[in-house]
Amino acid sequence: MDSTFRRTPDIHLQDLIDGLLSGNRAFLSKAITLVESKKAEHKKLSAELVNAVIQHEKESFRIGITGVPGVGKSTFIEAFGKMLTSKGKKVAVLSIDPSSNRTKGSILGDKTRMDELSRDPNAYIRPSASGATLGGVASNTRESILLCEAAGYDVVIIETVGVGQSETVVKDMVDYFLLLMLAGGGDELQGIKRGIMEMADHILINKADKDNLKAAKKAREDYKNAVHLFPPNDAEWTVPVGLCSAIEKTGIDDAWNEIDNYAQHTQMNGWFNENRRRQAIKWFHERVRARLEEDFYSKPNIKEEIKKREELISSQKISVRKAVDELFS
Amino acid sequence: MDSTFRRTPDIHLQDLIDGLLSGNRAFLSKAITLVESKKAEHKKLSAELVNAVIQHEKESFRIGITGVPGVGKSTFIEAFGKMLTSKGKKVAVLSIDPSSNRTKGSILGDKTRMDELSRDPNAYIRPSASGATLGGVASNTRESILLCEAAGYDVVIIETVGVGQSETVVKDMVDYFLLLMLAGGGDELQGIKRGIMEMADHILINKADKDNLKAAKKAREDYKNAVHLFPPNDAEWTVPVGLCSAIEKTGIDDAWNEIDNYAQHTQMNGWFNENRRRQAIKWFHERVRARLEEDFYSKPNIKEEIKKREELISSQKISVRKAVDELFS
Repeated sequence: MDSTFRRTPDIHLQDLIDGLLSGNRAFLSKAITLVESKKAEHKKLSAELVNAVIQHEKESFRIGITGVPGVGKSTFIEAFGKMLTSKGKKVAVLSIDPSSNRTKGSILGDKTRMDELSRDPNAYIRPSASGATLGGVASNTRESILLCEAAGYDVVIIETVGVGQSETVVKDMVDYFLLLMLAGGGDELQGIKRGIMEMADHILINKADKDNLKAAKKAREDYKNAVHLFPPNDAEWTVPVGLCSAIEKTGIDDAWNEIDNYAQHTQMNGWFNENRRRQAIKWFHERVRARLEEDFYSKPNIKEEIKKREELISSQKISVRKAVDELFS
Repeated sequence: MDSTFRRTPDIHLQDLIDGLLSGNRAFLSKAITLVESKKAEHKKLSAELVNAVIQHEKESFRIGITGVPGVGKSTFIEAFGKMLTSKGKKVAVLSIDPSSNRTKGSILGDKTRMDELSRDPNAYIRPSASGATLGGVASNTRESILLCEAAGYDVVIIETVGVGQSETVVKDMVDYFLLLMLAGGGDELQGIKRGIMEMADHILINKADKDNLKAAKKAREDYKNAVHLFPPNDAEWTVPVGLCSAIEKTGIDDAWNEIDNYAQHTQMNGWFNENRRRQAIKWFHERVRARLEEDFYSKPNIKEEIKKREELISSQKISVRKAVDELFS
């Protein structure tokens, strides 16, 4: 929590909205900190803030980027972000890392990771939101996206650590889902949930340079063949498989061209707006569900009661239906 | 609903349990009808029934089978089921088809589809459970699996229509997930959700016969290459890609051998039990969530209130957080 709020609890909402809409970065940071706050009075303000800014809709494109640790995500995002700012775009980078803990230095980590981009006046890098649940973190990030867009950032990049369930969560909040890969087989993908490859709108094989170039080209052919076997996606989009080297800054422009093709394609066929609409409705239902669960799990002794029944279920001493009946009686 | 229950509401639970455990098919049918019933008194009885039978655990193997319409699922299950009964196995076939409606003749449909298998004394075919929600249908099917196992069926096959979300639901209730495919590209997979291919424990290309054999062999190589690129699965299992012809009854034994290898492999490495345990716990949490939602959605006017807010969200007139706050205030 930003210390500003602890000292001055009476934030002037209109000042914050005006500052945000003017593109002021300090106000953007303040606004994001506000929506991440768990304090009751901040929650109410946050709701007003986000509600006010979505009425000032601005054009934007949201890109999710994932890949295993070691694939070179930060280096890629730095090169990709610099390419975008050089084209006059304003770029925001948010990340979802449910395992991260703000106090353990992830701010420093993120800033030093993308050193050059973080010093670019047209880029805004915000470290991972922390939170108890992935759903909570995701909801904060969704609101942060809206705030970045209100502040005039036209491309919002959501980076995820690429392990566990966070990719599916990111997929549900972006217009485009880019999967960074390395040349090599499935073993390097340890930790990534199966199904992610089929969710990607774009597969980009990084580190396609030097001694690795030949293997990367071979991998591109393999992935192209695999992509061809997948069921068609809702966007009616043929998933491109490309090569890049974030370090040598090759293939970065090509990647953007593909993304731009996608943006035009989905604007034309209506998927862009339809997808955003569906994502918002799904998010709404998720939050309703989360609220129901929060209320339920805050009942006295409920956690013990659940744990007890989980053990009985695990040892097949009680059926699921009976366990649920007991819990609600 | 079976008419028996309407006429004799006082079912003797112990008779039903005894009949079921003795392997009597009429009692099995009666028991499944009971767990599918929505009547309050039947729900209570169902809970007792399922709770009683899980204490008499029997060895079993649960196989989910999916594939696009036209892939030949029924013909395959008929050939596969007959092969199993010829080996002395007792086979039950259940299906999940959220779109089906019992009164529209799906019983007749299922029975005539698997004509030979349905006349086999060691096979039991039960038509699709009907239900308002996929979650509800899924929960009924999970209980039906337990009832079939209590009645001595060692192999329980869950067939799904292969379109929409039902595959992920089936994946969560089986030991093994078999995907039937055809030679050909992604276009034939229209309607199947992306991600299913990566969930499969086995890919089997059907109709590998006559003029189609060459294309099927080519497809096998393509799928083998694709499978090699997927992230490793939790079972530490290399997904086999095979050929079969359900009509010519070739490749059916080979498929079973692979399944048997999987059963042994996962019994050895502990995944078999761990997976069942995780599935049961996940089911429990899903039912808790479903119950919370049922209670919530049964409130007066709540559906209208939600619909109204969905429209405001769709047209970006209100933020998700504000919509949720309003709904709960």
